Amino acid sequence: MIIDSDPLAAMRLPELRPGAAWLVGAGPGDPGLLTIHAVNALRQADVVLYDALVSDRVLALARPGARLEETGKRGYEASMPQADITNRIIQLAREGLRVVRLKGGDPFVFGRGSEEASALVDEGIPVSIVPGITSGIAALTAAAIPLTARETNSAVTLATGHFSDGDSNRVDWENLARLKQPIVLYMAVRQIGVIVNRLMSGGLSPETPVTFVSEATTPAQRVVDSMLGRAEGDASAADVSAPAIIAIGANVALRRSLAAGLVPLVPCRNGHGISDG
Amino acid sequence: MIIDSDPLAAMRLPELRPGAAWLVGAGPGDPGLLTIHAVNALRQADVVLYDALVSDRVLALARPGARLEETGKRGYEASMPQADITNRIIQLAREGLRVVRLKGGDPFVFGRGSEEASALVDEGIPVSIVPGITSGIAALTAAAIPLTARETNSAVTLATGHFSDGDSNRVDWENLARLKQPIVLYMAVRQIGVIVNRLMSGGLSPETPVTFVSEATTPAQRVVDSMLGRAEGDASAADVSAPAIIAIGANVALRRSLAAGLVPLVPCRNGHGISDG
Repeated sequence: MIIDSDPLAAMRLPELRPGAAWLVGAGPGDPGLLTIHAVNALRQADVVLYDALVSDRVLALARPGARLEETGKRGYEASMPQADITNRIIQLAREGLRVVRLKGGDPFVFGRGSEEASALVDEGIPVSIVPGITSGIAALTAAAIPLTARETNSAVTLATGHFSDGDSNRVDWENLARLKQPIVLYMAVRQIGVIVNRLMSGGLSPETPVTFVSEATTPAQRVVDSMLGRAEGDASAADVSAPAIIAIGANVALRRSLAAGLVPLVPCRNGHGISDG
Repeated sequence: MIIDSDPLAAMRLPELRPGAAWLVGAGPGDPGLLTIHAVNALRQADVVLYDALVSDRVLALARPGARLEETGKRGYEASMPQADITNRIIQLAREGLRVVRLKGGDPFVFGRGSEEASALVDEGIPVSIVPGITSGIAALTAAAIPLTARETNSAVTLATGHFSDGDSNRVDWENLARLKQPIVLYMAVRQIGVIVNRLMSGGLSPETPVTFVSEATTPAQRVVDSMLGRAEGDASAADVSAPAIIAIGANVALRRSLAAGLVPLVPCRNGHGISDG
């Protein structure tokens, strides 16, 4: 609303050079949660290679004339294989273009950005990483749930429920339960049944609060409250679909008091306060 | 560099109203990692109540004429008690001012933002939360360490080592070690000896890679590489001081290959690549 260019121009932001590639975090959805560096990247890009999770309102900030290419990755759906995406970034950089690889959330949080960066480094392409607001934190905030609070937790574990090889043992869920600290799950809607059963086997109470936040920080945001023992059924009944973040633990209960008073930055269907569940 | 106001003006960013308070994340230090919402908040503020960790270059983005008040919180040092900070926010909002409470990193990640938000809600003051890039993720990225990578981890635990009541049992470090996933510690330089001993008691190898990143994303950034079994000594020898983030785990080893190729967004003393340790 009251943003002008003067203070930003004075910041001397970095130049995206021809032949370089930046892996840029697009944040959780709300364009207002882009960083200055991300906007600066988009304003310089010759080509933007973006994930399906990146919203049109974010892409609208790209330099007029920039080529926009979608990679089509979205959970388990058919999409461009990771190797093809990586090769495409390399090819575009080799053509001498200014390449922005735009990824939902943060490039180094459950987004295979590490593999992309590693391949680019191996090819000698100058690559920089622009952090983004990760959905696992912003989705909770948008649902009035603090990731941490002194009265509930001194640690929190972020985990992915998306196992491309089907191997849910990549996380020791029973041991995670024994840690007795809150858990934030990314891409876990499909595997929620397996995960909650293993967490309960590890000793977490079926009454542990659970909240699903889908399409967080967008006007389509939905919040569904549940508890561990019935999370799978509630998610199914409410038709919770990806992209969604799942919050589990004592901090989730703080939502009850905070949601009534917090004013959301983005007006949405049910705001902070009302559960669809 | 190439940021102009047009696309930002078209975003219709939210208005900070008189009498309202926004808890705003200032990110890890680099002003380029502020969000658009944070800049928008600073440009509207009548008063900015900021933590000691917030840099002058971030404060420079405040509206000319805005009053800047420092709360002085910085780790264990003498500072304004939390209750006084909370009361000051309430008082300023009651005076009808547009209040920005500017906190390092993200307001809902180990920053007592939850307590501040809760108090403001109880007082009926309109409060919004503006997420920020949390230091625990951005500091790793700035040291060329991915928070997650498919070949190393499907989960990661963020924990604080700052125990205002001296009770390190607020985290079950032995069980955390058994999870065998990477760990990111906030505000843990002082307690690093206690924490690494308990992690090794829980079964983590003394050879587990550890990297300290202090003043991350600023020109004063320092990176010190170590391993669990000698982390306390190395931190002491290298004079690692707060604010610092400590990364522990298999993902930290990825730094060796990535650091040589990644181009830092902010030029700094030893960049991605060189350890002071």
